[in-house]
Amino acid sequence: MRTYNFSAGPAMLPSEVMERAKEEFCNYKGTGCGLMELSHRGPEFSEIVESVESDIRELMGIGDSHAVCFIQGGASMQFAMIPMNLMLPGGFAEYADTGSWSAKAAKEAKTFGEVRTVASSSDTNYDRIPVIRHWQPDPKASYCHITSNNTIAGTQYHSFPEVETPLIADMSSDIMSRVVNIDDFGLIYAGAQKNLGPSGVAVAIIRRDLAERTPDNVPTMLRYSTYIEKKSLFNTPPTFAIYMLGLVMKWLKEQGGLSAIEEVNDAKSEALYELIDRSRFYRSPVDPSSRSRMNVVFRLPSEELEAKFVADAKEKGMIGLKGHRSVGGIRASIYNAMPMKGVETLIDFMNEFERVNG
Amino acid sequence: MRTYNFSAGPAMLPSEVMERAKEEFCNYKGTGCGLMELSHRGPEFSEIVESVESDIRELMGIGDSHAVCFIQGGASMQFAMIPMNLMLPGGFAEYADTGSWSAKAAKEAKTFGEVRTVASSSDTNYDRIPVIRHWQPDPKASYCHITSNNTIAGTQYHSFPEVETPLIADMSSDIMSRVVNIDDFGLIYAGAQKNLGPSGVAVAIIRRDLAERTPDNVPTMLRYSTYIEKKSLFNTPPTFAIYMLGLVMKWLKEQGGLSAIEEVNDAKSEALYELIDRSRFYRSPVDPSSRSRMNVVFRLPSEELEAKFVADAKEKGMIGLKGHRSVGGIRASIYNAMPMKGVETLIDFMNEFERVNG
Repeated sequence: MRTYNFSAGPAMLPSEVMERAKEEFCNYKGTGCGLMELSHRGPEFSEIVESVESDIRELMGIGDSHAVCFIQGGASMQFAMIPMNLMLPGGFAEYADTGSWSAKAAKEAKTFGEVRTVASSSDTNYDRIPVIRHWQPDPKASYCHITSNNTIAGTQYHSFPEVETPLIADMSSDIMSRVVNIDDFGLIYAGAQKNLGPSGVAVAIIRRDLAERTPDNVPTMLRYSTYIEKKSLFNTPPTFAIYMLGLVMKWLKEQGGLSAIEEVNDAKSEALYELIDRSRFYRSPVDPSSRSRMNVVFRLPSEELEAKFVADAKEKGMIGLKGHRSVGGIRASIYNAMPMKGVETLIDFMNEFERVNG
Repeated sequence: MRTYNFSAGPAMLPSEVMERAKEEFCNYKGTGCGLMELSHRGPEFSEIVESVESDIRELMGIGDSHAVCFIQGGASMQFAMIPMNLMLPGGFAEYADTGSWSAKAAKEAKTFGEVRTVASSSDTNYDRIPVIRHWQPDPKASYCHITSNNTIAGTQYHSFPEVETPLIADMSSDIMSRVVNIDDFGLIYAGAQKNLGPSGVAVAIIRRDLAERTPDNVPTMLRYSTYIEKKSLFNTPPTFAIYMLGLVMKWLKEQGGLSAIEEVNDAKSEALYELIDRSRFYRSPVDPSSRSRMNVVFRLPSEELEAKFVADAKEKGMIGLKGHRSVGGIRASIYNAMPMKGVETLIDFMNEFERVNG
C-alpha cells in the first residue's frame, strides 16, 4: 500500500514519477549506466537540463525577460544570495514578516544592508498575511521580499503586493501549485523538495537585468550571472535531482498544467477547511483570509488528542501529520503530488476520529 | 551488459550499490515511500546521516579533532567557502598551482586576501607535481592549499608537503582511494561524484578549531560552524545524495576499507601504465613521479587515431574515454567503483586497437 505522506517536505512525489525513475535507475535510455553515473557534459544530461528549463518556461509562462537557474543549497542559500547580489550599494531592502522563514530570510540580509519590515503579522501570531492595501512600500528600496506560503503558520498570499521595486518571492512551498504572473516578480525562488522534486536543488527565476547588479566581490558560485551565463552548468550540477525535477514537470504537463493543478489544489484544501469549519472538534488557527492551500494546519481539543491523532493516522498509512515543533498541532501538507484520494482518506479518518474521540 | 564508464565524473557507482538503491527506490524499509520522499527530520534519514558520518570516520580514521560536514555546491563552492572562512584578517594564503582546478580555487580566494603561489608546474605544462622538497611554505600564511589529484593533467601527489599552516586539500578526485593521515590536514574536501556517490553533495572534513576563524559577516549557509553545530541539518540537505553516499561507504567497508581499495587502485593503474610504457603506440605525457592512479591520461600517434579510439571503444561498451576538451588525448578515469574487469577490458581493447591501427 502506498503511504500518504503529509510531511511539509521533503514530500511525496507523484507515484508515476517514482516508478519511472526506478525503472530506468540502473540503465538510463539504454546507456548501460544510471543517469546519476553519466557525465553532466554528455548528451543525455544536456537533453534533460534543456527540456526541464523549457518545460518550466511553458508551465509558468516565462518569457525571455527572466532566466531559469538551478542552484544548490536550497532556499536558505538564496536567503544569502539575494542580498549579496541585489542589495544596492548603501541601500536597504524591505521584508514582509510572516513567520519563521521570512525572518530567516531577513536575518541573512542584514549583513549586506539595512533591512526594513514592510509589513508584519507578528502581533496576531502570524495567523494571517498582513492586509496588503495597508502596506506602504518604499520605491527606493533595493527590493521587496515576501514568503508566498508559510508552511509553519499555514498562511498564503492570495494576491500579491504591487511594488515599484523588484518583488522577490520565496515560493518554496507553493511554486507551480497555481498560476502566477511572472512579470509581477523580479525573482521567484524555491527549494524543490515540496512541489518540484527531491531536495538538493533550488529553482531561481530571475529578471535578467537584476543579475547585473552583483558587486565584483561576490564569489563565482554565488552570482546569479554565473548560472545564467553557463546555463546552470558552471560546475557539476546535482544531475539526479534535476532529472527528477524534469520528470515532475512532464507529469505536471500531463495533469493539464498549472491551472488544472490549481483546481485540484483548491478542491483538496477546501474539502479539509470545510470539515474543520463545520466541526466543533477541529479548529483552524488561521484567519480565513489567508489560509494556505498547501499546508492545512489545525488543532484538536487537547495536545493529548493531537498526539493520538498522529499515532492513529500513522497506523492507517498517513504519516507526517505532526505540526511544526515550534507551534504544535496538526499540519496536513498537500502539495501537488498528494492525490485527492489521499485527502479523502484523511477526511474519512478525521470524521471517524472525531466520532470516536469527540 | 554493464557499460564501463571511464568518465571523469559524475562517474560509475558500484553495481551492487545501484541495484540496492533501485530495489528500495519506491519503498524505503517498508515505509511505503521512497527515501527521497521522507522528511530529513524523520527517523529514517536521521539514521542514515549518522551512519554515513560514522562510516566515513571509521574508513578514514577520523578522530574527534575533525568534523565531517555535508555541504551543497560541490568543490567549486568550497573554493569560495575556504577563503571566506579561513583567510586571516589582512592575511594571505598559499596555493600550489598544478592545473585548471587549482587555478580556479586560487582565483576565488583573491577576493578575500592575497594569494601566493607556493609551487607551480606550469612551466612543464602541468606534467608533474612540483618537487615537494623545493617548496618554501611561509609559516605566516593563513593556510596552504593543494589539489591532491588533477583530473585533467592526470597527476597526483604521492606524498604531501609538511607545512606549519593548515594544509587544505581538494581531494575531489581521489578521496578514499587510498590511506591518508587525517592529522596532516586542516581541511579535506571533495565533491562526491567521483569516488563517493552522485553529484549534489560535497564532504568537508575540517579541524574543529579552524571553524572558529570565520568572520561575523559570512552568511549562515557559508560558515563551516553551521554544518558542524547542526550536524549538516541546518536546512534540508540533499537527502538522496547522502543516502547514496552512505551505500557507497558500506560497499567500501565490504571491500576491506581504504588499504584494500588502494591495492586494487594500484593494480588497476599499474596495469595501464605498464601497457602504455611498453607500447610505442601509446604515450603518457605525465612525468613518472606524479602519475595519477585515478585518471590515466595518454596520447595516440594522432588526433585522428584518438577519435577513432574513443569511437571504437564506445562500440565495445566503454564510454567517457575522451580527454578533457582543454588538453585533448585520452583519459581513463578509474575511480574506486571501476572494477578490475573494466580495466582488463580496456587493456584488451588497447592491445587490439594497437595491433590493427599501429
